[in-house]
Amino acid sequence: MARDATAEVLGEICPHYEAAFEVLGRRWTGLIITSLVDGPRRFSEIGGAVDGLSDRMLSQRLTELEESGIVTRSVDTESRPVAVTYNLTAKGLALKPAFEALQSWAEEWMAIPAITT
Amino acid sequence: MARDATAEVLGEICPHYEAAFEVLGRRWTGLIITSLVDGPRRFSEIGGAVDGLSDRMLSQRLTELEESGIVTRSVDTESRPVAVTYNLTAKGLALKPAFEALQSWAEEWMAIPAITT
Repeated sequence: MARDATAEVLGEICPHYEAAFEVLGRRWTGLIITSLVDGPRRFSEIGGAVDGLSDRMLSQRLTELEESGIVTRSVDTESRPVAVTYNLTAKGLALKPAFEALQSWAEEWMAIPAITT
Repeated sequence: MARDATAEVLGEICPHYEAAFEVLGRRWTGLIITSLVDGPRRFSEIGGAVDGLSDRMLSQRLTELEESGIVTRSVDTESRPVAVTYNLTAKGLALKPAFEALQSWAEEWMAIPAITT
């Protein structure tokens, strides 16, 4: 959709962008998406990759991300126990460049406690 | 199964990146930073650029961003009334590529209905 030139002159923020932050600007959401960038994961694998994230919150965020079309949930009923995995959609994968840029910024600018590698 | 092999190489998320989301992954923060990308603004100008943002919340977010070294506050005591402006630091300006990538994503994907596969 064409951007509104008037809004741009007045310095208002593009509504698509506001809508994006409405979804992405929530605690844990960015980290959950990042944990799926390299491929599908089970619920417990996502929880294990994100420090301090409770199962209840993870469940809520995954539901929001499904509703936004960023994540899909797949159930493999043939495996025992039934395997449920989460994966990024094309829309979710398209976030990769933005998240990579954010990671570069974080590495350069964010001070953190001593890391053990 | 292939999934088990994948699980073995899944690492934890970089702590710098977690720290970044700790600051940036808060409601309004991304939009406030975006409103400052083109130069310093007064409090009321930032509030005017971000729909639905209350003065109280803006004040809280600006304080957090000052504490994180992303925004600076300048007071021009010679002007009447005293002019208080907010500006991005070098650390804040360095977010520009990430936010531009996010804006491209928003323009491409937030306007269309969610895809479910």
